[in-house]
Amino acid sequence: MTDFARTRALFDIPEGMIYLDGNSLGPLPVAAKERVATMLADEWGKHLIKGWNAAGWMNQSRRIGDRVGKLIGAPEGTTIMGDTLSIKVYQALAAALDLNPGRQVVLSDSGNFPSDLYMAQGLIGSLGRGLELKVVEPEAVADAIDETVAVLMLTEVDYRTGRLHDMKALTAKAHAAGALTVWDLAHSAGALPVDLIGAGADFAVGCTYKYLNGGPGAPAFIYVAPKHLETARPALSGWLGHEAPFAFDLDYRAGAGIDRMRVGTPPVIALTVLDAALDAWEGVSMADVRATSIALCDLFIAEVEKRCPDLVLATTRDGERRGSQVSFRHPQGYAIMQALIARNVIGDFRAPDAIRFGFTPLYIGEKDVLGAAAILETIMKDRLWDRPEYHRKAAVT
Amino acid sequence: MTDFARTRALFDIPEGMIYLDGNSLGPLPVAAKERVATMLADEWGKHLIKGWNAAGWMNQSRRIGDRVGKLIGAPEGTTIMGDTLSIKVYQALAAALDLNPGRQVVLSDSGNFPSDLYMAQGLIGSLGRGLELKVVEPEAVADAIDETVAVLMLTEVDYRTGRLHDMKALTAKAHAAGALTVWDLAHSAGALPVDLIGAGADFAVGCTYKYLNGGPGAPAFIYVAPKHLETARPALSGWLGHEAPFAFDLDYRAGAGIDRMRVGTPPVIALTVLDAALDAWEGVSMADVRATSIALCDLFIAEVEKRCPDLVLATTRDGERRGSQVSFRHPQGYAIMQALIARNVIGDFRAPDAIRFGFTPLYIGEKDVLGAAAILETIMKDRLWDRPEYHRKAAVT
Repeated sequence: MTDFARTRALFDIPEGMIYLDGNSLGPLPVAAKERVATMLADEWGKHLIKGWNAAGWMNQSRRIGDRVGKLIGAPEGTTIMGDTLSIKVYQALAAALDLNPGRQVVLSDSGNFPSDLYMAQGLIGSLGRGLELKVVEPEAVADAIDETVAVLMLTEVDYRTGRLHDMKALTAKAHAAGALTVWDLAHSAGALPVDLIGAGADFAVGCTYKYLNGGPGAPAFIYVAPKHLETARPALSGWLGHEAPFAFDLDYRAGAGIDRMRVGTPPVIALTVLDAALDAWEGVSMADVRATSIALCDLFIAEVEKRCPDLVLATTRDGERRGSQVSFRHPQGYAIMQALIARNVIGDFRAPDAIRFGFTPLYIGEKDVLGAAAILETIMKDRLWDRPEYHRKAAVT
Repeated sequence: MTDFARTRALFDIPEGMIYLDGNSLGPLPVAAKERVATMLADEWGKHLIKGWNAAGWMNQSRRIGDRVGKLIGAPEGTTIMGDTLSIKVYQALAAALDLNPGRQVVLSDSGNFPSDLYMAQGLIGSLGRGLELKVVEPEAVADAIDETVAVLMLTEVDYRTGRLHDMKALTAKAHAAGALTVWDLAHSAGALPVDLIGAGADFAVGCTYKYLNGGPGAPAFIYVAPKHLETARPALSGWLGHEAPFAFDLDYRAGAGIDRMRVGTPPVIALTVLDAALDAWEGVSMADVRATSIALCDLFIAEVEKRCPDLVLATTRDGERRGSQVSFRHPQGYAIMQALIARNVIGDFRAPDAIRFGFTPLYIGEKDVLGAAAILETIMKDRLWDRPEYHRKAAVT
């Protein structure tokens, strides 16, 4: 395993906490505190409206999009920040459907994050041209790709189990059948090497508050393949995606390239935090991150299986076929996770019965893995999950 | 005029700057700096993922929505924060169109902010059921309301001239013709008293970076009238608008009431800034704000007309019929504004020829008005706008 002591020092993690939930929300980058303070006092406070030019706010979405692009195999000018992942899913799917008229099926799987499916349902309901969202089991996706499919819309890493789709093979199969692809990289960007150009992906979207540590509700990104950049119709045609936003014309004309995927005024403060967070990736090899992540996950699986025979592994043992997380199933999963959290081992629970642990080499190492497994062992052996306080449901799980 | 010295002290405005652009971007609330620092260090830094429950992040959009609601005559549970104004326009228009099927016209005017028109064009293009966006002159709106109109979509205050539509009368006329209304309050919320319930508005949307001082790219709001809360279809059906987001069902079911207008994960850091900014409104009477704003605008008009005969007033003299801004036209408007900015009088330019000044009583008073008019007089008398450096176009005007 590569030693990530240097990057670990870049994050604020409370003393004694074993944080295995960076796949939900990354920790605070130390640098973000000063960066935001400076942005508030010296940019907003001193420049006020002039900050759009003087502090480079207007260019932030594009510049940071290129920084994210470097982590996902996207060339400059193909990735842009803004909005939320759900909104970016809508944009990507709407554009993909427009580029492939005459077909009626959006194909997805039950391992896709529900919000992606919901946004597709809303879009299909709006379009009202007889489109159908077809949701199959993850294992059945490849066989379900046929010439009825307009768009294949998948999340690369299953948020529940960590199962990793073969983006390149599925994209090739989709293309062979005449379908376009929309890939959600929520659990991929910053978790493993992604090669959008190599895979031939048409559209990709993702969030930045997980492995990219951008903070709660950090802006999302959208990628459009070079071949679609000038033809993709922006369904969410906001003024900052206009060819000339400050001409204030009454008619929309899509801007050049990826800029057309901008919608409204960009979230400058949130982008400033994200920009600081992305500094942690400078000089980091994604291959090293991946190798370490696989080793940490392997170690966790081995330790938990040895110590906790009642937990059923929900994630593949094949490191190459999973993302950077491990899940176990147990009927008392919710209470087990509450007992872990009470002991400062932070993972999360995904209904109906999965406890989920994310492994994020930038700031998590072997010692954390062994510590978490030992505490989990105590909880299982002593049935500590059987206390009433661990069965109270929180608003957010 | 009411003395707003108390609220003026709540904002960071650089020494010597006369800031007449709070209608574009409000100044930094002093309290925001510490509030964000605390949120980063003590909420994100200490709670990490647990912040969603422990720090109340999940409830923020709703709680702050109610705070904004108080300023626009919206009862609790009818206003929620999120996304950008462009996205909220899309949501509101899509929902309004769904509630009024069988009609083909979206009626708007040429004084609407272009992004609203663009979003309508994008939505209509997606819906593909023969809808038409009809854009008339602001003065022709009332007469254009007829039984072909599905939705009347207007911005209450014209961003160029400050002309104020009569929301109550136009809404009544729309309802009498069987149309629904979408009101954009971008230049109304925090600028003048708004009574959404009294006006019978069906939907309203707005941004919070202007008169509400939420910072660059601050989150938007959407209001849904009580009678539509349980029937409005969320076209942007994201997981946080779902009845049970953490059940992770595969099918979307709209949440109760205004919560269905949530889409993706809320922008916690930006909402924290906005929350601090809204504190400035505690104990402030909107009637006092309005009376002072009218007096400041009247004074500015009188002073500029006296001193600068070449500038043509583009705003009505009737204080009751305008928002909280004044515009003048001049063929050299762009260069004149650059000359003003170079002398630390900050307004903005709106193509083709308007120089625009916002009056925001929370932190702007008579002295600022007189100072700005005097500097403008010098620029006009000495033709200072005729220098080449004032003719260079910036990215953002």
